Amino acid sequence: MKVVIIGGGAAGMACASRVKALKPEWDVKVFEATSFVSHAPCGIPYAIEFGFGSEKLIYYKPEVFIEKRGIDLHMNSKVVELEYGKVRVEENGRERSYDWDKLLIATGASPKLPKIEGIDLDNILTVDLPPDVEKISKVSKKAEDIVIVGAGYIGIEMAEAFSTIGKKVTVVEMEDKPLPQYDKEITDIIKREMEKYVNLRLNERIVSFEGRDAVRRVITDKGEYPADLVIVAVGVKPNVELAKMLDVELGITGAIKTDERMRTNVENVYSAGDCAETKHIVTGKPVWSPLAPPSNKMGYVAGANMAGIDIKFPGVLGTQLTKFHNLQIAKTGLTEKEAIEEGYDIVKAFIEANTKVHYYPTSKKIYIKTIAEKNKKKLLGAQVVGYDDVAMRVNIFATAIQAGFTTKDLFFTDLGYAPPFTPIWDPVIVSARVLRF
Amino acid sequence: MKVVIIGGGAAGMACASRVKALKPEWDVKVFEATSFVSHAPCGIPYAIEFGFGSEKLIYYKPEVFIEKRGIDLHMNSKVVELEYGKVRVEENGRERSYDWDKLLIATGASPKLPKIEGIDLDNILTVDLPPDVEKISKVSKKAEDIVIVGAGYIGIEMAEAFSTIGKKVTVVEMEDKPLPQYDKEITDIIKREMEKYVNLRLNERIVSFEGRDAVRRVITDKGEYPADLVIVAVGVKPNVELAKMLDVELGITGAIKTDERMRTNVENVYSAGDCAETKHIVTGKPVWSPLAPPSNKMGYVAGANMAGIDIKFPGVLGTQLTKFHNLQIAKTGLTEKEAIEEGYDIVKAFIEANTKVHYYPTSKKIYIKTIAEKNKKKLLGAQVVGYDDVAMRVNIFATAIQAGFTTKDLFFTDLGYAPPFTPIWDPVIVSARVLRF
Repeated sequence: MKVVIIGGGAAGMACASRVKALKPEWDVKVFEATSFVSHAPCGIPYAIEFGFGSEKLIYYKPEVFIEKRGIDLHMNSKVVELEYGKVRVEENGRERSYDWDKLLIATGASPKLPKIEGIDLDNILTVDLPPDVEKISKVSKKAEDIVIVGAGYIGIEMAEAFSTIGKKVTVVEMEDKPLPQYDKEITDIIKREMEKYVNLRLNERIVSFEGRDAVRRVITDKGEYPADLVIVAVGVKPNVELAKMLDVELGITGAIKTDERMRTNVENVYSAGDCAETKHIVTGKPVWSPLAPPSNKMGYVAGANMAGIDIKFPGVLGTQLTKFHNLQIAKTGLTEKEAIEEGYDIVKAFIEANTKVHYYPTSKKIYIKTIAEKNKKKLLGAQVVGYDDVAMRVNIFATAIQAGFTTKDLFFTDLGYAPPFTPIWDPVIVSARVLRF
Repeated sequence: MKVVIIGGGAAGMACASRVKALKPEWDVKVFEATSFVSHAPCGIPYAIEFGFGSEKLIYYKPEVFIEKRGIDLHMNSKVVELEYGKVRVEENGRERSYDWDKLLIATGASPKLPKIEGIDLDNILTVDLPPDVEKISKVSKKAEDIVIVGAGYIGIEMAEAFSTIGKKVTVVEMEDKPLPQYDKEITDIIKREMEKYVNLRLNERIVSFEGRDAVRRVITDKGEYPADLVIVAVGVKPNVELAKMLDVELGITGAIKTDERMRTNVENVYSAGDCAETKHIVTGKPVWSPLAPPSNKMGYVAGANMAGIDIKFPGVLGTQLTKFHNLQIAKTGLTEKEAIEEGYDIVKAFIEANTKVHYYPTSKKIYIKTIAEKNKKKLLGAQVVGYDDVAMRVNIFATAIQAGFTTKDLFFTDLGYAPPFTPIWDPVIVSARVLRF
C-alpha cells in the first residue's frame, strides 16, 4: 500500500507516524517543501524574545522520522501537481512522479498578505516558518522602530518579544480592540496591559508602506509611524490550491471539508491540520481552527483510519492560550458574541478573583468571563485573563465544556486545593456559582 | 423556623450563609467553640513559613456573617449536650438551652493523638486551629531541632515550613514511604526531594517522648532524635460525640453517615464537613474525605436542602494537592493500590514529561501516573508530581474523571496550548495515549 502525505508539519508527521506504527510494511512518503519537519509558527516569537535560532524550535529532526519510524521523508520537495493516484514533485532541481493509494493533504496555512501599496518593500515580514526566525532577527537587530500590523495572537506575541528586547513597538489593529475575538470585558484588560509596553493603535487601517528599497514609514488612515521593520500578522489562510486540483471539496470556512475520520469527499483522500475544516464541539457546526494540538490529533486520526482503525475526531472547542508580558490570556468554547450569533439564549458572569488564598504571597488577580445556556445551564464558553494560573483555569473549563457540563456539574467538580496553588473556592467554581444552577 | 448549626468552620458557615440567603426570615444560630469562623488547618504551615499571625488566615471576620448575612453567630460557645429539638450550650461562663427545628452537625475533625509515653510533655503540639500558629511559633522560634511525627500532608507541609526557616527537621513515618496513600513511583520522587531538606526516617515507630517538663528527645524503635518541638501529624478523626448523643448513625468510615442531600438518619438533622461521610464518585462507595472544598460544598448543599431547594452533593474524587519545597504533589481518583483493592482490572501508565515546550526557558520536569479500567478504558485516577504546573494537570484529570471520561475522551480534550505554558502534546494527553484507547 502506497501512502503519500503532502506536508511535513504537525498533522503530516503525526499521520505518517501513526500509519507506520500500525502498518510498518506500508510505503509512507512525506513531501515537505521546506527543510524543517513538524514545524509551527508558535515558537517564533519566543525565539526572537530569548534570542535562539530556528534549529532549537525543532523537537524531532528528520532523521528520527526516517531512521526510527521508517518514513520515506522527502525534504525540500514541493508537490506541484496532484491527480488521482499520482503526485508530481519538484525535488533536487527536477520533477518526479509518485503513485499513491491513499493520500493526506496536510498543506497547512499561510499568512495573509493584504494588497497594500508598498507591501513588497524589504523588511516587511510575516511569521510562518522556522527560517523566519533568522530573517526577522537579522532585521530587528538593527531596527529601532517596529510596526506590527494586527493585534491577533501572533501580533501580540511578537509585540511582547520586540518590547522585551528593547524595541519601540507600534501595533496597528483595524478593530476597536486587541484580540478582537474576545469579549470587551476581557479585551479592556488586555488593552490596558498592552498600553504599558507598546503604542497600541486601534480602529486604524494601514494605507501604505513607504520607503526606498526597505520600508521606512507606515501610513495609516490616522497617522504615520517610523518603521525599520514591519511584521504583517493579519491572520492566515488555508493552503487549498493542491486540493482544488483533485476537486476536493472545500467547506463553508474555505478550508478543506472533512468528516470525523478526516476523509474528504474524494475516496482515499484525507486532510488534516491547518488546511482542514473540522467541527465545533459546542455548536456542532463546521469550524476552521488552525492550531497545533488539533492539527496533531487530526493527523493521528487520519493515519489511524488510513490504516484501518476506526476512530473519530470529535472536533474542537477553539481553546486558545497566549500571554502578553505578565498578562496571561485564554479562551475556550463560545464568547458571548459567538453564542448570541449562534442563537443561544444565554446567561453570563464576569468575576475578578485571586489565583490563590488571600494570605499566600504569590497570589495574583484573575478575571473570568463565562457563558452558559439559559435554561439547561449548559456551559458554552469561558474567557480567562490574569497574572497567573490562567492555563489551569481555561483547561478546567475546556474539559468541562468538552464533557457537556452544566454549571451545577462544574460547581461540584472536585478540584484540588492547597494555599500555594488555589483559593478554597476556586475562581472556576465561583464562576459556576455566579452563573447559577 | 429555627435552624441550629453546630460548628462555625467551612461547612457550618457555608450552610448558615445559604439558609439565610434563601430564607432571610429564618432564625439561624451558629455555635462555634473557638474565637474563629471558617477556620481550617490548611493555612497554618504557611503562617509558620512566612511568619504571619493567625488573624491573617481568616478571610471573613465574624462581623461579616453577623451584620451582612444576618446569622446569629455565637463565638466561644461550646455545645455540651444535644437532644431532639434542643441544644445545650456553654457560653460566657454559663449554660443555656436553645430550640431547633432543623440542625446541622458540622463539628469537624480533630488531630489524632496516639497513646505514647510522654505525649503530654510540653512542646508536643498538633496543627488544628488558627491559634496553633501562635503556639507553634512561640516554641519554634527558640527551637533548634524539630521532630515531626507523620509524613502525611500536614507533616510534609510543616517540614517545608520549618526547614525554610532554618530549623533542623526530622520526619518520622511508620510506613515505608512519605504520603503513603500514593503509589511507589510517585513516593520515590517525593522521598528524594524530602531527603534534600530533612532527616526522613521511614519504617520507624515512635516508642516514647522524653524530657522533664518539655520534650527533649524522641525515642523510636530504631534511634533517638533531639527535639525542642514535636509536631504530631498522624491524621485526624471525625468529631462525632455530639452526633452519638442524638443516635445519629455513623458510616463504615466512622464519620457521620449522610445521603446526597446531607441528611442523616435522624429527621431534620443534617451533617456536613470534616465530620461527615460522603460518596466516592469513582467507586460509588462511602468515603471520608475531610478537606476544605468538599466541606464548603457539603455545607452549601445542606443549607439549600434545609431551605427547601432540592440539590444533591455528588460526592468526591479525593482530589488532593500539596507541595514540598519545589516539588508539587497531587492526586485525584483512585491510586493503583486502591483500584486493585476495589476489584478493578486496570491498565496503568507512568510518564516523565516537560511542563512546557522543550525550548521554553522555564520548562520543568513533571511525572504522571494514571490508572484506567482495562476494558472500557474509563479513567480511574491520576497522581502527579513535578516542579511546576501540577495543579493544572491534576485539575484536568479531576474534571475528566468527574465527567466519566475514557482515555479516548481525554486524548481528544481540546486543551489550550502555548509555548510559555504547555508542550504541544500536553503530558495529560500523552498519558491518555500511553494508556491506549
